[in-house]
Amino acid sequence: MPEQIRPEDIEKRSFEIITEELQERGFQRDVTTGQLSVIKRCIHTTADFDYSETLCFSDGAVETFQSLIREGATVVTDTNMALSGINKQELKGYGCDAVCFMADADVASEAVKKGVTRASVSMNRAMSIPGPVIFVIGNAPTALITLRECYDAGMYTPAFVIGVPVGFVNVVDAKELITESDIPYIVNRGRKGGSNVAAAIVNALLYDMRGYDQK
Amino acid sequence: MPEQIRPEDIEKRSFEIITEELQERGFQRDVTTGQLSVIKRCIHTTADFDYSETLCFSDGAVETFQSLIREGATVVTDTNMALSGINKQELKGYGCDAVCFMADADVASEAVKKGVTRASVSMNRAMSIPGPVIFVIGNAPTALITLRECYDAGMYTPAFVIGVPVGFVNVVDAKELITESDIPYIVNRGRKGGSNVAAAIVNALLYDMRGYDQK
Repeated sequence: MPEQIRPEDIEKRSFEIITEELQERGFQRDVTTGQLSVIKRCIHTTADFDYSETLCFSDGAVETFQSLIREGATVVTDTNMALSGINKQELKGYGCDAVCFMADADVASEAVKKGVTRASVSMNRAMSIPGPVIFVIGNAPTALITLRECYDAGMYTPAFVIGVPVGFVNVVDAKELITESDIPYIVNRGRKGGSNVAAAIVNALLYDMRGYDQK
Repeated sequence: MPEQIRPEDIEKRSFEIITEELQERGFQRDVTTGQLSVIKRCIHTTADFDYSETLCFSDGAVETFQSLIREGATVVTDTNMALSGINKQELKGYGCDAVCFMADADVASEAVKKGVTRASVSMNRAMSIPGPVIFVIGNAPTALITLRECYDAGMYTPAFVIGVPVGFVNVVDAKELITESDIPYIVNRGRKGGSNVAAAIVNALLYDMRGYDQK
């Protein structure tokens, strides 16, 4: 049987290994403690060190996200899987809600009627939520495209976008639409990402707020 | 704005790209159509071609899994995130349930009392479900360790294990505990995996059952 290690020590040891291996791989990016927490938690979630190179942050992204949480922002995801992975207990401590409209029956019917994706309809729905909204996109490039289109049209400015859809069609370009705008963001450049990565980023930022050790 | 493509064509085009790139990378494993569907959907979910080399199948694994579904097996996951990603509509069509005990309050208290992980307690709980159980493990190596221990002790034989926890501590060894047993399995060797990959494998196998195109 494998090494005996207490359940509560597994995460700690994992982050030690990630820290060691980042060093061995010559990780030298000039990042803040908060950004490093995000990078490490994405690697923890995927065992994929590519994230150390591809995760991008707009100026002051970590602080902006954390301010929005303190203001009681609403977190909107593009999958129930990402919603499921986000630590709702942490969010509740700040009076924040997390929602996902993707499985709503009327979202599906509206999408069919308009010939757009459910993600696009969901984004439009989220734009009418009162107060700041943090968009957490782990799946649908069309969610990012819709956000940028509404931003360009002067209709809506997202308070924050976590843009980490995964995939092979439109994904790379859709992410660049966010990084090339003035919207505050955390984006994973390239094809990789996913609902698990989206949730990991949110959780890393929440844990960082209360000084939880992610070293 | 990126290439216009109809929502319903995005997945099709994605699988075409995956097929092309697998060829370019010299993918030559001798796999069945069902196994190939699993490999491709894991790549689709992660944009990580490592899965083409590390996914392992016990003899007849696809057929065994699909027979169990036709028998109305219960799917038990080790995260609510994996549960959330599994296509429950497809499962229902065969009269199958999917459940996760991880967030149950009495699982947490029992784990603390016994000094084991919640995953270990959840596995023990799943063993008392009547009828065959398919274990879908995307997170906790201790779930796999518990299953193997009970198997070795002659207490319980899992009908099927999808063993794809991700991580840095005990994960690699725990997966080998399954591949070195006689339990029917799909395992991703090495550190990689996750709840998203676990759900993708289940969905690929379900879609394959009704001939859904994953080429």
